[in-house]
Order: sequence, then structure tokens, then C-alpha cells
Amino acid sequence: MHLLQALCQIPAPAGNEAPLTEFLLRYIDQHQAEWDTPPTVLAGGEFQDCIILIFGTPRTAVFAHLDSIGFTVRYGRQLVKIGGPAVESGYRLVGQDSQGEIDCTLVVDEQTGALSYDFHRDLDRGTELTFHCDFRQTATTVQSCYLDNRLGVWNALRLCETLTDGIVAFSCWEEHGGGSVAYLAKYIYETYGVHQALISDITWVTEGVRPGLGVAISLRDSLIPRRSYVERIRRIAEAAGVPHQLEVEGSGGSDAKELQHGAQPWDWCFIGAAEDNVHSPHEMVDKRDIESMLALYQVLLREL
Amino acid sequence: MHLLQALCQIPAPAGNEAPLTEFLLRYIDQHQAEWDTPPTVLAGGEFQDCIILIFGTPRTAVFAHLDSIGFTVRYGRQLVKIGGPAVESGYRLVGQDSQGEIDCTLVVDEQTGALSYDFHRDLDRGTELTFHCDFRQTATTVQSCYLDNRLGVWNALRLCETLTDGIVAFSCWEEHGGGSVAYLAKYIYETYGVHQALISDITWVTEGVRPGLGVAISLRDSLIPRRSYVERIRRIAEAAGVPHQLEVEGSGGSDAKELQHGAQPWDWCFIGAAEDNVHSPHEMVDKRDIESMLALYQVLLREL
Amino acid sequence: MHLLQALCQIPAPAGNEAPLTEFLLRYIDQHQAEWDTPPTVLAGGEFQDCIILIFGTPRTAVFAHLDSIGFTVRYGRQLVKIGGPAVESGYRLVGQDSQGEIDCTLVVDEQTGALSYDFHRDLDRGTELTFHCDFRQTATTVQSCYLDNRLGVWNALRLCETLTDGIVAFSCWEEHGGGSVAYLAKYIYETYGVHQALISDITWVTEGVRPGLGVAISLRDSLIPRRSYVERIRRIAEAAGVPHQLEVEGSGGSDAKELQHGAQPWDWCFIGAAEDNVHSPHEMVDKRDIESMLALYQVLLREL
Repeated sequence: MHLLQALCQIPAPAGNEAPLTEFLLRYIDQHQAEWDTPPTVLAGGEFQDCIILIFGTPRTAVFAHLDSIGFTVRYGRQLVKIGGPAVESGYRLVGQDSQGEIDCTLVVDEQTGALSYDFHRDLDRGTELTFHCDFRQTATTVQSCYLDNRLGVWNALRLCETLTDGIVAFSCWEEHGGGSVAYLAKYIYETYGVHQALISDITWVTEGVRPGLGVAISLRDSLIPRRSYVERIRRIAEAAGVPHQLEVEGSGGSDAKELQHGAQPWDWCFIGAAEDNVHSPHEMVDKRDIESMLALYQVLLREL
Repeated sequence: MHLLQALCQIPAPAGNEAPLTEFLLRYIDQHQAEWDTPPTVLAGGEFQDCIILIFGTPRTAVFAHLDSIGFTVRYGRQLVKIGGPAVESGYRLVGQDSQGEIDCTLVVDEQTGALSYDFHRDLDRGTELTFHCDFRQTATTVQSCYLDNRLGVWNALRLCETLTDGIVAFSCWEEHGGGSVAYLAKYIYETYGVHQALISDITWVTEGVRPGLGVAISLRDSLIPRRSYVERIRRIAEAAGVPHQLEVEGSGGSDAKELQHGAQPWDWCFIGAAEDNVHSPHEMVDKRDIESMLALYQVLLREL
Repeated sequence: MHLLQALCQIPAPAGNEAPLTEFLLRYIDQHQAEWDTPPTVLAGGEFQDCIILIFGTPRTAVFAHLDSIGFTVRYGRQLVKIGGPAVESGYRLVGQDSQGEIDCTLVVDEQTGALSYDFHRDLDRGTELTFHCDFRQTATTVQSCYLDNRLGVWNALRLCETLTDGIVAFSCWEEHGGGSVAYLAKYIYETYGVHQALISDITWVTEGVRPGLGVAISLRDSLIPRRSYVERIRRIAEAAGVPHQLEVEGSGGSDAKELQHGAQPWDWCFIGAAEDNVHSPHEMVDKRDIESMLALYQVLLREL
């Protein structure tokens, strides 16, 4: 879990993913020699802060978003949300501006819900703040801010170790309206003819998806994937005996939104472990669900 | 109206249009020899569950969506909406799961509005339910669930009988956020240079659009088409003497959303009969409006 | 300010921009000989009512939307909004229908908020109404309806006078859901390889952005541009000594939405003067902010 901890500690709010991109490029550079198949690495320039890894002759692409939720400093001591963070007075927020390091606390006005920070000085307009990372483990759980989606990134990186044919794409802006998957999907489809996607992301613990019972295969969220593709995935998961749960939601979204609405005929399915305390500094995931998530991705990238 | 009845009875909620696609492919295969011009049929593979028919040298494309609204079984006896169905306790819902045929009733919690089903057994998670089809006719009306948009599909199929130059595209996911017209539009524009569209779909009876007074030409809904294109259509309709009504709405949408927002310069106009009891099992359309809808499409595909 | 006044007086609600497009094409035709560099003019056909001007070897594209907010006549005396106009009983609205010129007043129902017009006769269904233009100036301010975005168009036209390398694109539908920037952005990116954009549009006076203190550089609105691009712009603005203010908002949008969500990797930044009385007949901008807006665009088109 050292890799996961390192990923969780790097600030990368939507729009400013570059620090995490640089970490990943270094990591890939250092580790790809140990991987079964060395990938082609596409990054920089027209890929902005995204990364695409091409392994062998790909049939399926895995999308994992790099960005996280957070806050932008507005005027006075006001804060504006980046994505949809949970908010509670006292949450510890960190960042950096022209005057140096920032370690402040979130203040939520009880009447109005207005957000501000408590610090000994004013912060530069436009400064980004993210949750302070307090990475915690037990025998069965891992807990931290930003498991959504550093765990999806971690899953994708671990998948790379044994991947022979497939694509791993690290995307940006997912938490705040999207903006990179449209061009990643176009590039991948037009260059490699690939139109099968898996979304390596984290979902919610609910009455129907319980911690420890296996990775969630989402049958739908606010969008509905093509039934025939999801059925193929269910059959492979069952045949492989990988513990999993079926999720059915009416809301929520992911990088799949851009696949669904883009001008290429993607089939997609969201597959990810469920977390408690969503979008808070205390996101918690059961280690068994992390295990089955990776196992299912390994099987699917072979068999889809 | 046998064809319309057959179309209404096939379940095809957004995301699972395949049964209707198969019906249409068989129908086209069986009937195209009787049509004035045999079309090129594009289906399968990169078209997912959509179908494109190319007639002669096309200048205009007709889009008719295959999918309908419905419900997905969530956890316990909960239901989640597919698209925006009308909901009323007692509506008869049908479907199929691993244990067999389903014929149950919708229950709407009066306090919370929460949706569930009443049946002698639990249904598989993720099962899709659609309205039971009770197809009814009088001398002047037709009534059924899913006239939206099986009537639009019917209109497109009847148009095929005499079409010499044009494109008919059957799309998916329209009721639930869209997802196929973006790639259909791109393919049609790039392959055939066509950028004029008509949306063959069903609209609402309102204070301004009355049953029996002719097909509705929509001047706008939540989106606003290019004025100059809509004006051309109005002039052709007036010159041809086809009964029609002008619709002006501030809300509502159609496959045109994806044309408007896509990366090709489409001109589009929604033209369709109006129905009462929208999105319920009792959608009702006046037969005179069906007649004028088909007549107007025939004129427009010749003259646009 | 004669040019700005002329631009403000031409009705061009979203969907019916053609009158303004024609004015601009005439203006460009008449004035380009006086410009430092004659541009290639792309208009008509696949560009619908948009215009693209190509100067030299472009690296950056400026987007300025032509369309304005307004109203559509529905049934009876009802009105439906085009975009998000401010509404107040008594606002003077003008237009034209089959029976001639229209000069009527807006009526807002105090109970329901329903919109209608007061006039001596009924108006044709679908007629578009816009604010009557009362163009006013003081030593330091300019005031009119539709400074948003005729001032952005004016800024782009003035920029053309000295531009050597760059693209100026005039877009449609921005006030009502967009619909042209997607294809303009695709064309520009694929033809010229340009993926840097500036949005020449008007923003709001707020507690953080004051009249007279310089053009606003937006660090974010409802969307978040890529941090590294915005930082480059800030550094250039500071080095050039052009008066400017940093804006941070959680809502609002612009043509940048289509750049962010399109299938090309655009970097974008909204840069525009702030106005008071947004989307009313009385939009007001400080002349010093207009000056610094043009000055900053001139610097940025040279240095980005």
C-alpha cells in the first residue's frame, strides 16, 4: 500500500493534475522494465496532463481519473468547490500560494452553507486547497482522502504489471465536469480501433453494495451502458469466480459520461470497489474489495 | 396499424434496444424489395444497436429513436427510472429475469414518491421493466404505451416505401441522456456530406398544439434550431398544403440535442404528431396527425 | 464607439444570428485593407452563421459569440426566454413579424413570474423579440443592451487591425446552450493545429471584480481551465503591465464549455471586461476596462 499512500498524498485537484502526472510518468519509467509487457507511453503535448499506455494489441481500454475534488480561494476568505467535496467545519485543508505553504481549516457557515477558511493570513485569489492526507490502515481497511480515485489509479498501475494486450488511460477533470476523455476516446478509437472500456473508479457503499463482498459491477448510474456489453462482463466475472456485487443507481457519473456522449461507439462499464465517507477526508475501502477489483480487471483484460 | 402495434409491443428500454433492432432488420429485409428504392443497410459492429438506411443520393437525414422509457429493478423491491416515465400506482409492468416472465404492478409511495413493484417474488437486480402494451384504436385515434417513439419509427419506415434520396437513422438512448446520435451524425456527415436533419419523434398536446389539426413543426424546445432552416421547412409545408401546427416550447428535447452539440454543422428541425398522456401507458395520438406527419416527411425529403 | 453602437443595435438572438453575420462580413470586407495583415475569411456553408478569420501563422484562437439573449413568442401573449435575460415589467422589446414592425413592452406576472407582452395586436407564433437598444455614454462608461457580447465582438474586430498571427472566430448560440464552437474548434484544430483559446466575452461586476480596475482574467467559472495555461497568461499580463483583475467564480459559463468538452485538447481562458446590470437593457461597462481588454488581447496574441 506504499504506492497507494504516495498517490493519495499528491495534490491534484481538477485542472491542476500536473504534479500527479509527473509522479506517474516517473513511476512508469522506473517500473515498466519489471512489467510483463513494456507499454508505449503517450503523454505531453496534445494529451495535456493525461497519460495513455498501450500494451500489445489492445481490445479494451481502462480509464482511471487522476484528479480529485478540492476548493478554490475566491475573494476575502471565501472558498468555491472543485467538484463535490463533503464539507464539515474543521476539515484540514492544505495548499501553497505566493507566500508559502498553507495548512488551514474549513469553515462552513451553519446558516448559509457558505464556505471559508480559517488561517492566520489571507490566501492568494485562485489558490487551490485539498484535504490534508491522513492515510490509515487496519488489517481489513484502508482510509484516506482521495481513495476516489487514487485507488482506481493504483488498480490501473497494478494491472499494468501483468497486462499483455490493452490500454490504460489516465484522465483529467473527471470530478469537475470532465474534459479529457472526449479526446482520449477519439484518439484511442481512431488509432487502435478500440471501443470497449472499463472505468476504474470508486463507488459508494449503499444498502445494496456492502464493504468486503467484492468489487461492484455497475449496471447503471445516471447513465445506462449497453446491456449486451454489461452482460458479457457479468458472465466473465461469474465464470472466473471473482467476488463481485451488482450495483444499480439512478444518479452518479464517471468518465463514462464522455464515452457515452462522444462521437465514437464505445461500450463501457464502471467497475470499482465501494467506499464509505464519500468525498470526505475519511474515505474508507475494504481491502478485499481492492483485491477483487484488481483480480476482475486482470481477467477482463484477458477475456473481453 | 398492424406494424405500429407490433412496434409498440416490443420492449426496448434505453440501453437494451437490441430486440427492436432485430425486428427492424428483419422487417427491412422482408419489405425493401417492395420499396421504390432499395437502401444500403448499415447495422451492427460500430453502429451498436442503431441502423442507418441510405437511399439514392441523400441530402437530408431522418432520425427516429428506437428506445423507450421504463424502470430498472434496484435493491429490495425498489425501482429506478429509465428516462422520465409517468408514474401512477397500479400501472402494469412487464419484463423477464432469470426466474422467468414478470407481470407486476407499479407502486408509488404517496409520501416520498419512491417507486417499487408489487409481485409474488423478488426480481433480479438490474432487471428492466416496461409498460404492458394495451394497444387501442378508434376511428380517429390510436392509443398505447410507447407511441413515443414507435410512431416516429413507423413514420420513418413508411417514408422508406417511396423514398428515393435520403437517409433514415434509427437511434438509441434518446430517452435517457442520448449517446448514439453523436456518432451517427459524424458518420453521416463525413461519409455523405449530409447536414440537414428532421427529427421523427412525438411531441405533446398543449394549449397551442391540438389533436387533429396536423403534425407539429417545432420552432424551438429547450434548444433553438437555426432560424433560416426552420423557415425553409415552413415555406415548403405551406406550399404543399400539408396540415400542420407551429410549436413553441421552452423545455423538452430530442435527438436534436446531439446534433446541435456535435462537431458537425447540422441544421435540424423536430417534426412530429402530438400526443396526450405523455410517457404513460395511455399515450394517444389523432390519426389525422399521423397522416399529415407522413405526408410532410414525404414532401420534405423531396424538396429540402 | 460608433462601431460598438452599430453592433448593439442589430438584433441577433441565439439561432438567428444571420443579420449580425452579414453586417460583420460587410465590415470585414470594407476594412481589412486597412488592417496590418489581411485575413483569410471563412464563412457560409458548413460554417452556418459563424465566421472564422485566419491571420498569418496562428498559434491562438479568439472566440467571440455573436448571439444575444431575447424572447420567443409562444401561444396567446406568452413569451419564452432565449438564454437568460433579466426580466422586469416595462422593458421595451422590439422585433418584426408578418404584420410588420413590433415595439411592445415586457410584462412579468408578479405571482407566477410568467412572461408576456403588451401590444395593440397579437404577434405571430415564434416571433423573436430583443431589447430595444438605448445606447448611452459618459466620459468613463458605455451602457446598452447586449454589451454582452457585442463588446467581445468589438474587441475581436479591433484586435484584427494589428493582428499578424492568430485566429478570430465569431460563434453562434452561446447564450442558449451552445452549438457552433464544437465544429469551429474541430475545424481550427484539425486545419491549423491551434489549441490555445481566449474567450472574448463579458463577465460580471462582483465584490472581487470592480469597474475600472482592468479587464478580468477568469481563473475559473463553472468550469476550471488547465492551471498551467492560465498561469502563463497571468505572467504575460503582469510582465506587460496591463491593468487586470483575477476572477474566481463557481458558476457561469462561456464558449469555453464547448472547448472543454470537445474532442480536441484545447487550453482556454476567459478574458473580458466586467459589466453591471447583466443581461438587462442597461448593461454598463467602464471604458478603462475596455481599453485594457483590447491591450491584453494584443499582447497575448503576440506572446502566447
